[in-house]
Amino acid sequence: MIFLTRRAVFSASHFYWNEAWPAEKNEQVFGRCANRNGHGHNYTLEVTVAGEPDPVTGFVVDLKWLKEVMEREVLAAYDHRHLNLETLEFAAGKLIPTTENIAISAWNRLQPAVQAAGGAQLTRVRVYETPEVFAEYRGGQ
Amino acid sequence: MIFLTRRAVFSASHFYWNEAWPAEKNEQVFGRCANRNGHGHNYTLEVTVAGEPDPVTGFVVDLKWLKEVMEREVLAAYDHRHLNLETLEFAAGKLIPTTENIAISAWNRLQPAVQAAGGAQLTRVRVYETPEVFAEYRGGQ
Amino acid sequence: MIFLTRRAVFSASHFYWNEAWPAEKNEQVFGRCANRNGHGHNYTLEVTVAGEPDPVTGFVVDLKWLKEVMEREVLAAYDHRHLNLETLEFAAGKLIPTTENIAISAWNRLQPAVQAAGGAQLTRVRVYETPEVFAEYRGGQ
Amino acid sequence: MIFLTRRAVFSASHFYWNEAWPAEKNEQVFGRCANRNGHGHNYTLEVTVAGEPDPVTGFVVDLKWLKEVMEREVLAAYDHRHLNLETLEFAAGKLIPTTENIAISAWNRLQPAVQAAGGAQLTRVRVYETPEVFAEYRGGQ
Amino acid sequence: MIFLTRRAVFSASHFYWNEAWPAEKNEQVFGRCANRNGHGHNYTLEVTVAGEPDPVTGFVVDLKWLKEVMEREVLAAYDHRHLNLETLEFAAGKLIPTTENIAISAWNRLQPAVQAAGGAQLTRVRVYETPEVFAEYRGGQ
Amino acid sequence: MIFLTRRAVFSASHFYWNEAWPAEKNEQVFGRCANRNGHGHNYTLEVTVAGEPDPVTGFVVDLKWLKEVMEREVLAAYDHRHLNLETLEFAAGKLIPTTENIAISAWNRLQPAVQAAGGAQLTRVRVYETPEVFAEYRGGQ
Repeated sequence: MIFLTRRAVFSASHFYWNEAWPAEKNEQVFGRCANRNGHGHNYTLEVTVAGEPDPVTGFVVDLKWLKEVMEREVLAAYDHRHLNLETLEFAAGKLIPTTENIAISAWNRLQPAVQAAGGAQLTRVRVYETPEVFAEYRGGQ
Repeated sequence: MIFLTRRAVFSASHFYWNEAWPAEKNEQVFGRCANRNGHGHNYTLEVTVAGEPDPVTGFVVDLKWLKEVMEREVLAAYDHRHLNLETLEFAAGKLIPTTENIAISAWNRLQPAVQAAGGAQLTRVRVYETPEVFAEYRGGQ
Repeated sequence: MIFLTRRAVFSASHFYWNEAWPAEKNEQVFGRCANRNGHGHNYTLEVTVAGEPDPVTGFVVDLKWLKEVMEREVLAAYDHRHLNLETLEFAAGKLIPTTENIAISAWNRLQPAVQAAGGAQLTRVRVYETPEVFAEYRGGQ
Repeated sequence: MIFLTRRAVFSASHFYWNEAWPAEKNEQVFGRCANRNGHGHNYTLEVTVAGEPDPVTGFVVDLKWLKEVMEREVLAAYDHRHLNLETLEFAAGKLIPTTENIAISAWNRLQPAVQAAGGAQLTRVRVYETPEVFAEYRGGQ
Repeated sequence: MIFLTRRAVFSASHFYWNEAWPAEKNEQVFGRCANRNGHGHNYTLEVTVAGEPDPVTGFVVDLKWLKEVMEREVLAAYDHRHLNLETLEFAAGKLIPTTENIAISAWNRLQPAVQAAGGAQLTRVRVYETPEVFAEYRGGQ
Repeated sequence: MIFLTRRAVFSASHFYWNEAWPAEKNEQVFGRCANRNGHGHNYTLEVTVAGEPDPVTGFVVDLKWLKEVMEREVLAAYDHRHLNLETLEFAAGKLIPTTENIAISAWNRLQPAVQAAGGAQLTRVRVYETPEVFAEYRGGQ
């Protein structure tokens, strides 16, 4: 079993706000992240798949294919976007776009495409908000 | 003469839009950066001052002081902010918040404080939008 | 389950010396690290907690709280300190401040505070002595 | 149990080519990597061993020894070499030098030396082809 | 005047060999770099242009255009190539592909395209062979 | 003219103390850096020489030679040392080992060796105390 990982970067805006709370409570809990104009980050998305290298190619998966999947499933939706305003998961206050929730949402976007391809399994999605903070999701495990 | 540099990071949203143009032209010139919801970056601000080390302290400037100046003059205005909506320089479409203009604006914010302190001179302000792109301003030089 | 990680940096001095050995043996085993004047590093402390994101905040833990815990429990004791001379764990030759032992000691400092908070579990402490060398501790596992 | 990791860098050339295929198929599958003149990378080798710190030294293993093992077993064979032309594993088209296969081969080179030393176990070998792509092997696990 | 910089990465093979010398002398002077099978690097190309930001766009140059120029003039020729075998400058032993000469050659490739565009001037080309070694060329200055 | 740069890392301890001042003043000015037990850093030394590439080798200087000069003149004195206690420049409180003064001292150590070799000129010495703070010295310029 080999764990093969690829990184990509996307730039997005977000803010933290719980619609069920008054403004004061949002500001108290979320601090500067509660600014509803939004602020942004260069997020790093790190995707790991696991499997046996194909003896014919030496590939667990074709890295060009993995790059396309990451771009089509995640970057097309998140890059140069305001997560709270323009994405299915986070729009209309449905879900707060914390690094934790972005990692889960990226997994949910990637998993069907990796599974449909057969072979390698998605095992880990890591999202860095900055070099100092990151969240990792491993599916149900 | 010693050139002493300190870095700090701020997270901000921005978009590119020229109010004098129709939407089509903005989208053609600025591409994905024309999304008026904004997107964001972890910007790195790199500030260089030059002078002789004080023989009593060994300091060109006190780095704690330089950190405070950078936080008070630049980060307090830009960090966790939407540059197009919440800053003096860029609000109301006055100036487009490109990396180039952010570097000039940061210089203009820092220069009076460094000059007022006497001694060391501000010689360079560099702003990284991402690790791959940065703009540098050296004042009138 | 989400694994949420935060980094912090501390600068400290240390040396390696086993009091039960003669100087020659210390120098033979520990080489340049046996210099009792000490030398130093910018250590990176990387702390991972695991749990479910709170549906109300989207947080596994509040990252501001985690930063405070790391500063209070570890950085307050280690940053700008000589580990062999000024820390409970390593003073008086009780324990040699290798990267391995610093990782275990940081875990032991952090674990009660994370446990007392309830909710998320401490799952991993990683300490980088340099970008080329790091030690990781996962508690009893 | 502590997991202790050390990194080293090697510079090598490689290309991807399956001798059983016609040139067209190689070019279609491997793209620019099929250029038989070779191209190259600064690979980062990251080796993790696990064990209990020796109470006498504080070491899981002596990092100077681990460095020597990495240099003797892997870097001496791969650094400043053309992997397809000059290495036992990859010469004569036996195995395609993908990042996946380099990670497995490095494990196979390191494992006997770590095992012979007794004590700590080799638990993970990670190879970065670039900062954006890496493969990890954990032995039979 | 603003100095705007963009980075790109290319992976290439090279070796050092002076055709006028016997093999022994090449090996003595160039050491492991004299291996004629080649070895390789992930080179980072860093290109700086200088000019005034256009008041209409805020751009010194359009960074999309600069990326295209770097890809067309340099990466198309060097990326995934063996510099000694496949490039105009370095083929047939004409010039030894040291980091110094690669920086000069990249400048010579970029300069006509930047000049033809009018406006901003090419002021600096920096090439990193590894994070530890880089060469910088500023044209005739 | 080509500017060729090489980096090296050294780990050292230091503290800031002006012997002419009472303890209170030292603590007030230097804060946590006044802890006389010392603390430490992984310093990065970045040395730039300038000259024309030799047409026979393609080298401004031989990078192996530059590495040896940096190790012999700077690292042998500073690496794994306590700067305040074990170095000619900083011992006995002669000079405070700030990043500024370390950069000047490294220049003074390197300059005679580079000059004696003829050819390339030393043009810049940069010392990073952390990735966030660095000082640069260009000789008398």
